[in-house]
Amino acid sequence: MVKYRKSISSAVIRRLPRYYRYLSTLLDMGISKISSKDLGNRMGITSSQVRQDFSCFGGYGLQGYGYDVEFLHQEIANILGLNTVRHMIIIGAGSLGTALAKHKEFEKKGFKVIAIFDVKSEIIGQKITEHEIRHLDTLPQFLENNHVDIAILTVPENFGREVAAYITSLGIKAIWNFVPIELKTPSDVIVENIHLIDSLMVLGYNYKNNNNK
Amino acid sequence: MVKYRKSISSAVIRRLPRYYRYLSTLLDMGISKISSKDLGNRMGITSSQVRQDFSCFGGYGLQGYGYDVEFLHQEIANILGLNTVRHMIIIGAGSLGTALAKHKEFEKKGFKVIAIFDVKSEIIGQKITEHEIRHLDTLPQFLENNHVDIAILTVPENFGREVAAYITSLGIKAIWNFVPIELKTPSDVIVENIHLIDSLMVLGYNYKNNNNK
Repeated sequence: MVKYRKSISSAVIRRLPRYYRYLSTLLDMGISKISSKDLGNRMGITSSQVRQDFSCFGGYGLQGYGYDVEFLHQEIANILGLNTVRHMIIIGAGSLGTALAKHKEFEKKGFKVIAIFDVKSEIIGQKITEHEIRHLDTLPQFLENNHVDIAILTVPENFGREVAAYITSLGIKAIWNFVPIELKTPSDVIVENIHLIDSLMVLGYNYKNNNNK
Repeated sequence: MVKYRKSISSAVIRRLPRYYRYLSTLLDMGISKISSKDLGNRMGITSSQVRQDFSCFGGYGLQGYGYDVEFLHQEIANILGLNTVRHMIIIGAGSLGTALAKHKEFEKKGFKVIAIFDVKSEIIGQKITEHEIRHLDTLPQFLENNHVDIAILTVPENFGREVAAYITSLGIKAIWNFVPIELKTPSDVIVENIHLIDSLMVLGYNYKNNNNK
């Protein structure tokens, strides 16, 4: 595995999953090499963007040959850490938490749900896939016995801050936040937001302006 | 309502829902004015960023007074078109489509689910909230009788392109895409992506690099 320059810009990092998806498709199609131009065309970006991005982590194409698809695919997997299984817990077993628990794609990429927590007594003990819903009060004990990398936060909006403070106080260092608020967390905690309503509002705006509606 | 310069940059547009959420919270707290510094502090951005963003659409604070919270809140709602009810259909009644159908926050912001479609005969006619799942074959007829603004795409990955082509051929102009692929659509169709696995991979990367794990 190639050693990379310490920091790859966050803009490049955000593009890596997309490259990874495209390269996976190419591999599935039995395509073993591709030019920056072809790859850029498929992805709707310029070939110079592709070359610049890949040069950040030592993926140099050969003139007249292009990139080795399998090599790049593997390198991006290494950078993203997809060869390591990450243990996730879901906090908030409502419909969104349930949908994420059932989502099969995550585990295929190494992100494995290992437990689900909630506070509603009437659903504690019910099963979502193979997991019994546990009471959030049992999280400290669970963390003593299990390694957890990522907490998925799908609690109601008014509990977001409180629950985030609670889980980070217990040592959680990465939160995938679906609550439509900005969380204030210690600086060593990584938060990645999926703000559904923000995305929908942007779509509504672009739709309105594109169609004069 | 103030007339805006024709185009507000997409970076500003992406920040507007966040401003809107913060301003909603301030209104709920009974706060009627706020300085760019205070607002920036709460949101974790600089006061000059706030002033620059708001100047794009005529939201000028008064020196020593700050911004009128209600005015700004209303202006952002106008820009985003939140005063117009948008009709949405969900295509793909799996766990994610079901979760989105049950999500109450969307309708509060004017985004109303009016129908749900799938192709699995065994679930056609079942109810999610008040909506019977309809067969996708009945979509053309549905569109003749109902105005639809946005289609939410939550079908399995291998059906994504085909279904997107089908619904745009029927005149759908806005797609909220949850399928982990890039859709190729006509230029007058707006696509907004929620790529869950991409977001999770970025979180995994940042977690790894922040904690040397």
